[in-house]
Amino acid sequence: MKNLLKGKDVLTAQQFSKEEILQVMDVAADMEKAVRKGKNLDNMEGKILATLFFEPSTRTRLSFEAAMLRVGGQVISVASGATSSAAKGETIADSVKTVEGYADVIVIRHPQVGSAQEAADAADIPVINGGDGTGQHPTQALLDVYTITKEKGGLEGLTVCLLGDLKNGRTVHSLSHMLALFGARIVLCAPEVLKMPDYIVADLKQRGAEVLEIPDAAEAAQQSDVLYVTRVQKERFASEEDYLKVKGIYVIDMNMIRQAKKGITIMHPLPRVDEIAYEVDSYEGAAYFRQAHNGLPVRMALLSMVCGRV
Amino acid sequence: MKNLLKGKDVLTAQQFSKEEILQVMDVAADMEKAVRKGKNLDNMEGKILATLFFEPSTRTRLSFEAAMLRVGGQVISVASGATSSAAKGETIADSVKTVEGYADVIVIRHPQVGSAQEAADAADIPVINGGDGTGQHPTQALLDVYTITKEKGGLEGLTVCLLGDLKNGRTVHSLSHMLALFGARIVLCAPEVLKMPDYIVADLKQRGAEVLEIPDAAEAAQQSDVLYVTRVQKERFASEEDYLKVKGIYVIDMNMIRQAKKGITIMHPLPRVDEIAYEVDSYEGAAYFRQAHNGLPVRMALLSMVCGRV
Amino acid sequence: MKNLLKGKDVLTAQQFSKEEILQVMDVAADMEKAVRKGKNLDNMEGKILATLFFEPSTRTRLSFEAAMLRVGGQVISVASGATSSAAKGETIADSVKTVEGYADVIVIRHPQVGSAQEAADAADIPVINGGDGTGQHPTQALLDVYTITKEKGGLEGLTVCLLGDLKNGRTVHSLSHMLALFGARIVLCAPEVLKMPDYIVADLKQRGAEVLEIPDAAEAAQQSDVLYVTRVQKERFASEEDYLKVKGIYVIDMNMIRQAKKGITIMHPLPRVDEIAYEVDSYEGAAYFRQAHNGLPVRMALLSMVCGRV
Repeated sequence: MKNLLKGKDVLTAQQFSKEEILQVMDVAADMEKAVRKGKNLDNMEGKILATLFFEPSTRTRLSFEAAMLRVGGQVISVASGATSSAAKGETIADSVKTVEGYADVIVIRHPQVGSAQEAADAADIPVINGGDGTGQHPTQALLDVYTITKEKGGLEGLTVCLLGDLKNGRTVHSLSHMLALFGARIVLCAPEVLKMPDYIVADLKQRGAEVLEIPDAAEAAQQSDVLYVTRVQKERFASEEDYLKVKGIYVIDMNMIRQAKKGITIMHPLPRVDEIAYEVDSYEGAAYFRQAHNGLPVRMALLSMVCGRV
Repeated sequence: MKNLLKGKDVLTAQQFSKEEILQVMDVAADMEKAVRKGKNLDNMEGKILATLFFEPSTRTRLSFEAAMLRVGGQVISVASGATSSAAKGETIADSVKTVEGYADVIVIRHPQVGSAQEAADAADIPVINGGDGTGQHPTQALLDVYTITKEKGGLEGLTVCLLGDLKNGRTVHSLSHMLALFGARIVLCAPEVLKMPDYIVADLKQRGAEVLEIPDAAEAAQQSDVLYVTRVQKERFASEEDYLKVKGIYVIDMNMIRQAKKGITIMHPLPRVDEIAYEVDSYEGAAYFRQAHNGLPVRMALLSMVCGRV
Repeated sequence: MKNLLKGKDVLTAQQFSKEEILQVMDVAADMEKAVRKGKNLDNMEGKILATLFFEPSTRTRLSFEAAMLRVGGQVISVASGATSSAAKGETIADSVKTVEGYADVIVIRHPQVGSAQEAADAADIPVINGGDGTGQHPTQALLDVYTITKEKGGLEGLTVCLLGDLKNGRTVHSLSHMLALFGARIVLCAPEVLKMPDYIVADLKQRGAEVLEIPDAAEAAQQSDVLYVTRVQKERFASEEDYLKVKGIYVIDMNMIRQAKKGITIMHPLPRVDEIAYEVDSYEGAAYFRQAHNGLPVRMALLSMVCGRV
């Protein structure tokens, strides 16, 4: 196998070709199988990951760190901006140029859009974007694709509904690009004020994707194989009244699932607050925790690939 | 040996049978011997511990993490609630259901009573309670029992005085249950406003324990083989005047030790502020730092046992 | 080789003899060579480092932790005082006496001058000072000496200019002592209000060092082989006006470097804010990131030496 990501940065969803994504999926699936047998891998022995998290995160940081340990590597970590030199006014570029002397690969999360690109420009070692504000979260998109593939057997011909806050959610922006690439039909379901930006819809269509806008959640769910839920935040609305009008429509409960397409898969990038009722957790199509767990093999694969250790 | 804790959670002091406690003590003693020779164990190779600390702690977190490393495992860590998804409003159950995809065992500390139980109910992997507010701290009780056994040769027939804030101290609540189980005589020494709750005293007596209430510290110390000191906090009193009245009685210094039972062992869960004078540190019966160090073998044993690796 | 630092603490720059510094340099150089081949060492297998950082730091903490991992050890960490028992009022001595039960060596950073000495007095295991307020930062001085040696081939006969805030900078205090020890000529370049304290200058001269005070940066740079830049902080001046008067003189840009001594090496302990223009980064004598990276081998050497594992 020719490792297609060797020495590369992972910054955006759009940077990935179909071939590259499929390779990540394959490597992740192999690694998942190996780890399920209860033994960690050792392909990253001697390598150190630096996680630089200037914003709070449990899921992304811990899953990257666990992934590094499960492939035999080690971790050094900045878990919050307040404990780092950023508090003294250092630029991202300077921080990264320092840290690359201690580590072999960097995962960075930073509130500023473009920060991961800035880090990658400064560093000679691979940089992985762990979320740059409202910008990109490409490893989330990869694990989402991995999840859909595992749950449904593939993406082609599937109808995937993106629901909730499609305006501000970096997760759904990144994912929609990959869905288009793999020939999935995309249903967009959002209140008027939180619609998917026009430039993204235009781009999806230009890539040949079939895109439908269905603002009613129940109707959207009836047509979809996968329902990808994101949080609708109160503070995005002009008034409390506007918020209350749409709130109920975008909360997923068993009543809605019973009226949805049979066997519908429910996904969510987590953390959830109240957009999926807890009763849904025992529904077998509720895939959001399996989705979170898929972060492990996907990140094991990514770390190993960019470091040239597969 | 049949591992009595395999796959179990560690949530309360009361969950433990005498047989289980003795097994923890045995495994801990063996591991301590092995580590004293300067070599770590490897029985937990390939296993990952997630420490989720939503409250500050040096002692408990670091000793669990060191314990995991000393048995050959690895660690991922959330050192404060502020850097985690809890800041975004995620429930404990959701946090734990996510993290169990990355780790093999979880240690959780959370300010809310019952939080560890909530975590254990949500998780399929073993959960260990690292302190849930004013609730329980069972691994502290186990290391306290381990310490008394090492310092005194056993618990049976021993008189152990619990001194200070017996009302709010989760440590002394947990410990008292284990003392009763092992047939120790219990002396309770506290100011009126900080007395051991009646329901606990009743429970201890029902278990057949001999329980004496001696509010005068000097008198209590004369009758006890072990003096277990906890902090009397000013803010628990109605007035400064009330506090000052009792303050001096509950500060342990060499003057008091000279009048106490010969060879008395002084314990404290730490951190101390001013309830034990620094001059006491050089007294050979001052066991509180040895006690803190005993956290290591006891936690090595617990982690290995619940993961089925002994 | 007789390990000259076995079992010792590393607390000040002054504690080091020339012979000891040379041994650290030798061990560091050997370790750097080994690691550059892409394989970590294993001489610290089974050892645990506790990093206790009560003040923010990216560089120092991460480089110590990476250093420990690269020699085969493991790490437990307190990344900020707010998440530790210090928040509950525990003394440094008590914290350290607890932690030494879990680890084999401690690196401490604490805002209070003398804190590392206090920690070392309390601990039986080696303690390394990672910076005690405005006091000392001896491992920085060692990596500075290592850097100058690598960049220039040695220190003897070299002219090293210390520039900027020489009054408050613990880095330049520590370094100046080592420069004197190795027979370097020292140029002090600082505005009047930020001059090197008289007692340090007197001490340097007493050690036989040639010390020149040249407040004009351009003039100082013309006479120096190495320019060691530190930050001039606005808040140190009585008035904005006073600050603006000197500000420009102490900012290093390419214009100044073109007028400086040919081949001049630019160093900085980092983080920088605006005291070195970003255009200087591509100048081949700009050694500050190489300097930061040299923290790794120097700290690998120090950790291994104090633990008796070289």
